[in-house]
Amino acid sequence: TIDSAVKEKIQKYLSGLGCNPSGPTKKLSCISIKNSGRVATCPSGMIVTGCACGYGCGSWNVEGQNTCHCQCSVIDWTTARCCHLE
Amino acid sequence: TIDSAVKEKIQKYLSGLGCNPSGPTKKLSCISIKNSGRVATCPSGMIVTGCACGYGCGSWNVEGQNTCHCQCSVIDWTTARCCHLE
Amino acid sequence: TIDSAVKEKIQKYLSGLGCNPSGPTKKLSCISIKNSGRVATCPSGMIVTGCACGYGCGSWNVEGQNTCHCQCSVIDWTTARCCHLE
Repeated sequence: TIDSAVKEKIQKYLSGLGCNPSGPTKKLSCISIKNSGRVATCPSGMIVTGCACGYGCGSWNVEGQNTCHCQCSVIDWTTARCCHLE
Repeated sequence: TIDSAVKEKIQKYLSGLGCNPSGPTKKLSCISIKNSGRVATCPSGMIVTGCACGYGCGSWNVEGQNTCHCQCSVIDWTTARCCHLE
Repeated sequence: TIDSAVKEKIQKYLSGLGCNPSGPTKKLSCISIKNSGRVATCPSGMIVTGCACGYGCGSWNVEGQNTCHCQCSVIDWTTARCCHLE
Protein backbone atom coordinates (compact mmCIF):
# COMPACT_ATOMS: atom_id res chain seq x y z
CA THR A 1 0.00 0.00 0.00
CA ILE A 2 0.97 3.62 -0.29
CA ASP A 3 0.85 3.91 3.52
CA SER A 4 3.39 1.16 4.17
CA ALA A 5 5.63 2.47 1.40
CA VAL A 6 5.66 5.92 3.00
CA LYS A 7 6.28 4.55 6.47
CA GLU A 8 9.21 2.47 5.22
CA LYS A 9 10.60 5.55 3.47
CA ILE A 10 10.38 7.58 6.67
CA GLN A 11 12.03 4.87 8.73
CA LYS A 12 14.90 4.58 6.25
CA TYR A 13 15.37 8.32 6.07
CA LEU A 14 15.31 8.81 9.84
CA SER A 15 17.73 5.99 10.47
CA GLY A 16 20.08 7.62 7.95
CA LEU A 17 19.83 10.81 10.02
CA GLY A 18 20.98 9.01 13.14
CA CYS A 19 17.70 9.98 14.77
CA ASN A 20 17.37 8.58 18.30
CA PRO A 21 14.20 6.51 18.73
CA SER A 22 14.13 7.12 22.47
CA GLY A 23 14.14 10.88 21.93
CA PRO A 24 16.74 13.55 22.62
CA THR A 25 18.39 14.06 26.02
CA LYS A 26 16.72 16.69 28.10
CA LYS A 27 18.32 17.70 31.36
CA LEU A 28 21.52 17.87 33.42
CA SER A 29 21.00 16.02 36.66
CA CYS A 30 23.43 15.93 39.64
CA ILE A 31 23.65 14.31 43.06
CA SER A 32 26.16 14.47 45.94
CA ILE A 33 27.82 11.32 47.31
CA LYS A 34 29.38 11.82 50.75
CA ASN A 35 31.73 9.35 52.38
CA SER A 36 33.87 9.22 55.48
CA GLY A 37 37.55 9.14 54.58
CA ARG A 38 39.35 10.74 51.64
CA VAL A 39 37.56 9.21 48.66
CA ALA A 40 33.98 9.28 47.38
CA THR A 41 32.79 7.57 44.21
CA CYS A 42 29.95 8.46 41.86
CA PRO A 43 27.44 5.76 40.82
CA SER A 44 28.20 4.09 37.50
CA GLY A 45 27.07 6.28 34.58
CA MET A 46 27.68 9.55 36.43
CA ILE A 47 30.81 11.70 36.27
CA VAL A 48 32.54 13.98 38.81
CA THR A 49 32.12 17.71 38.19
CA GLY A 50 33.63 18.84 41.52
CA CYS A 51 34.65 17.63 44.99
CA ALA A 52 34.37 18.93 48.56
CA CYS A 53 36.57 17.87 51.47
CA GLY A 54 36.43 17.99 55.26
CA TYR A 55 38.74 20.21 57.37
CA GLY A 56 38.24 23.07 54.89
CA CYS A 57 40.48 21.37 52.32
CA GLY A 58 40.21 22.50 48.68
CA SER A 59 42.95 20.27 47.23
CA TRP A 60 41.46 17.32 45.37
CA ASN A 61 41.79 15.28 42.22
CA VAL A 62 39.54 13.00 40.23
CA GLU A 63 40.63 9.39 39.83
CA GLY A 64 39.29 7.57 36.78
CA GLN A 65 36.34 9.89 35.96
CA ASN A 66 34.14 9.04 38.91
CA THR A 67 36.10 9.15 42.17
CA CYS A 68 36.99 12.23 44.25
CA HIS A 69 40.21 12.07 46.24
CA CYS A 70 40.91 14.73 48.87
CA GLN A 71 44.62 15.40 49.31
CA CYS A 72 45.15 17.29 52.58
CA SER A 73 46.95 15.40 55.35
CA VAL A 74 43.92 15.23 57.62
CA ILE A 75 40.53 14.52 55.99
CA ASP A 76 37.41 13.20 57.73
CA TRP A 77 34.92 13.30 54.84
CA THR A 78 34.80 13.62 51.06
CA THR A 79 31.88 14.52 48.84
CA ALA A 80 31.71 13.90 45.09
CA ARG A 81 29.37 16.03 43.00
CA CYS A 82 28.16 13.59 40.33
CA CYS A 83 26.28 14.51 37.15
CA HIS A 84 24.83 12.95 34.04
CA LEU A 85 22.21 13.66 31.40
CA GLU A 86 18.73 12.26 31.80
CA THR B 1 -4.02 14.94 -1.62
CA ILE B 2 -0.98 12.70 -1.58
CA ASP B 3 0.99 15.54 0.04
CA SER B 4 -1.25 15.91 3.04
CA ALA B 5 -1.46 12.13 3.46
CA VAL B 6 2.34 11.89 3.55
CA LYS B 7 2.69 14.81 5.96
CA GLU B 8 0.16 13.28 8.33
CA LYS B 9 2.02 9.96 8.14
CA ILE B 10 5.31 11.65 9.02
CA GLN B 11 3.80 13.54 11.93
CA LYS B 12 2.25 10.36 13.35
CA TYR B 13 5.46 8.41 12.97
CA LEU B 14 7.66 11.11 14.50
CA SER B 15 5.37 11.60 17.46
CA GLY B 16 5.54 7.84 18.07
CA LEU B 17 9.35 8.19 18.14
CA GLY B 18 9.16 10.78 20.92
CA CYS B 19 10.91 13.22 18.60
CA ASN B 20 11.37 16.65 20.19
CA PRO B 21 9.78 19.40 18.06
CA SER B 22 12.12 22.04 19.48
CA GLY B 23 15.16 20.03 18.42
CA PRO B 24 17.86 18.26 20.42
CA THR B 25 19.84 19.93 23.19
CA LYS B 26 23.18 21.22 22.07
CA LYS B 27 25.54 22.61 24.68
CA LEU B 28 26.54 22.60 28.35
CA SER B 29 26.35 26.13 29.68
CA CYS B 30 27.55 27.34 33.11
CA ILE B 31 27.63 30.56 35.11
CA SER B 32 28.99 31.58 38.53
CA ILE B 33 26.74 33.13 41.18
CA LYS B 34 28.71 34.89 43.96
CA ASN B 35 27.15 36.06 47.20
CA SER B 36 28.36 37.52 50.46
CA GLY B 37 27.79 35.11 53.33
CA ARG B 38 27.85 31.33 53.34
CA VAL B 39 25.19 30.47 50.75
CA ALA B 40 24.80 31.11 47.02
CA THR B 41 21.88 29.89 44.94
CA CYS B 42 21.69 29.04 41.23
CA PRO B 43 18.89 30.50 39.11
CA SER B 44 15.89 28.23 38.66
CA GLY B 45 16.55 25.60 35.98
CA MET B 46 20.29 25.42 36.70
CA ILE B 47 22.05 22.93 38.96
CA VAL B 48 25.20 23.18 41.14
CA THR B 49 28.27 21.37 39.79
CA GLY B 50 30.73 22.82 42.34
CA CYS B 51 31.17 25.55 44.98
CA ALA B 52 33.94 27.94 46.03
CA CYS B 53 34.23 29.62 49.43
CA GLY B 54 36.03 32.58 50.94
CA TYR B 55 38.91 32.23 53.46
CA GLY B 56 40.36 29.38 51.40
CA CYS B 57 37.64 26.99 52.57
CA GLY B 58 37.01 23.82 50.53
CA SER B 59 34.30 22.30 52.75
CA TRP B 60 30.87 22.74 51.21
CA ASN B 61 27.63 20.94 50.52
CA VAL B 62 24.76 21.38 48.10
CA GLU B 63 21.34 22.02 49.58
CA GLY B 64 18.38 21.00 47.44
CA GLN B 65 20.14 20.80 44.05
CA ASN B 66 20.77 24.50 43.55
CA THR B 67 22.28 26.10 46.67
CA CYS B 68 25.95 26.05 47.73
CA HIS B 69 26.60 26.15 51.48
CA CYS B 70 30.14 26.79 52.74
CA GLN B 71 30.84 25.12 56.06
CA CYS B 72 33.98 26.65 57.59
CA SER B 73 33.47 28.72 60.74
CA VAL B 74 34.42 32.01 59.09
CA ILE B 75 33.14 32.63 55.53
CA ASP B 76 32.84 35.99 53.79
CA TRP B 77 31.70 34.87 50.32
CA THR B 78 30.28 31.85 48.52
CA THR B 79 30.19 31.13 44.80
CA ALA B 80 27.96 28.53 43.15
CA ARG B 81 28.98 27.13 39.78
CA CYS B 82 25.64 26.62 38.02
CA CYS B 83 25.10 24.64 34.81
CA HIS B 84 22.33 23.53 32.47
CA LEU B 85 21.86 22.42 28.89
CA GLU B 86 20.86 24.97 26.30
CA THR C 1 8.58 9.51 -8.69
CA ILE C 2 6.50 8.91 -5.60
CA ASP C 3 9.67 8.00 -3.71
CA SER C 4 11.47 11.24 -4.37
CA ALA C 5 8.31 13.22 -3.59
CA VAL C 6 8.00 11.48 -0.22
CA LYS C 7 11.67 11.96 0.59
CA GLU C 8 11.49 15.66 -0.22
CA LYS C 9 8.39 15.96 1.98
CA ILE C 10 10.17 14.28 4.89
CA GLN C 11 13.22 16.49 4.51
CA LYS C 12 11.10 19.64 4.48
CA TYR C 13 9.07 18.53 7.47
CA LEU C 14 12.11 17.52 9.53
CA SER C 15 13.98 20.72 8.79
CA GLY C 16 10.89 22.63 9.99
CA LEU C 17 11.11 20.65 13.24
CA GLY C 18 14.69 21.78 13.81
CA CYS C 19 15.75 18.14 13.76
CA ASN C 20 19.52 17.71 14.10
CA PRO C 21 20.98 15.70 11.19
CA SER C 22 23.96 14.61 13.28
CA GLY C 23 21.67 13.09 15.89
CA PRO C 24 20.97 14.02 19.50
CA THR C 25 23.70 14.57 22.09
CA LYS C 26 24.35 11.59 24.28
CA LYS C 27 26.73 11.95 27.21
CA LEU C 28 28.35 14.33 29.66
CA SER C 29 32.11 14.02 29.39
CA CYS C 30 34.70 15.65 31.70
CA ILE C 31 38.48 15.86 32.03
CA SER C 32 40.89 17.48 34.52
CA ILE C 33 43.52 19.98 33.41
CA LYS C 34 46.29 20.53 35.99
CA ASN C 35 48.82 23.31 35.82
CA SER C 36 51.56 24.69 38.01
CA GLY C 37 50.69 28.18 39.21
CA ARG C 38 47.31 29.71 39.98
CA VAL C 39 45.45 29.29 36.69
CA ALA C 40 44.37 26.29 34.59
CA THR C 41 42.43 26.54 31.35
CA CYS C 42 40.02 24.09 29.75
CA PRO C 43 40.44 23.15 26.08
CA SER C 44 38.29 25.13 23.68
CA GLY C 45 34.72 23.80 23.60
CA MET C 46 34.80 22.67 27.23
CA ILE C 47 33.54 24.61 30.25
CA VAL C 48 34.66 24.74 33.91
CA THR C 49 32.34 22.96 36.38
CA GLY C 50 34.72 23.21 39.37
CA CYS C 51 38.33 23.96 40.38
CA ALA C 52 40.86 22.50 42.82
CA CYS C 53 43.87 24.33 44.24
CA GLY C 54 47.16 23.46 45.92
CA TYR C 55 47.89 24.20 49.60
CA GLY C 56 44.37 23.07 50.53
CA CYS C 57 42.85 26.25 49.09
CA GLY C 58 39.11 26.24 48.28
CA SER C 59 38.82 29.86 47.13
CA TRP C 60 38.62 30.11 43.36
CA ASN C 61 36.79 31.82 40.56
CA VAL C 62 36.18 31.11 36.90
CA GLU C 63 37.51 33.62 34.40
CA GLY C 64 35.71 33.76 31.06
CA GLN C 65 33.97 30.36 31.19
CA ASN C 66 37.03 28.16 30.81
CA THR C 67 39.81 29.24 33.19
CA CYS C 68 40.15 28.38 36.89
CA HIS C 69 41.90 30.96 39.07
CA CYS C 70 42.95 29.99 42.61
CA GLN C 71 42.90 32.95 44.99
CA CYS C 72 44.89 32.03 48.12
CA SER C 73 48.17 33.89 48.65
CA VAL C 74 50.33 30.81 48.14
CA ILE C 75 49.33 28.39 45.35
CA ASP C 76 51.55 25.79 43.68
CA TRP C 77 49.03 24.08 41.39
CA THR C 78 45.57 24.56 39.95
CA THR C 79 43.25 21.99 38.38
CA ALA C 80 40.26 22.83 36.19
CA ARG C 81 37.47 20.28 35.91
CA CYS C 82 36.31 20.70 32.30
CA CYS C 83 33.12 19.24 30.81
CA HIS C 84 31.15 19.18 27.58
CA LEU C 85 28.56 17.06 25.80
CA GLU C 86 29.68 14.48 23.30
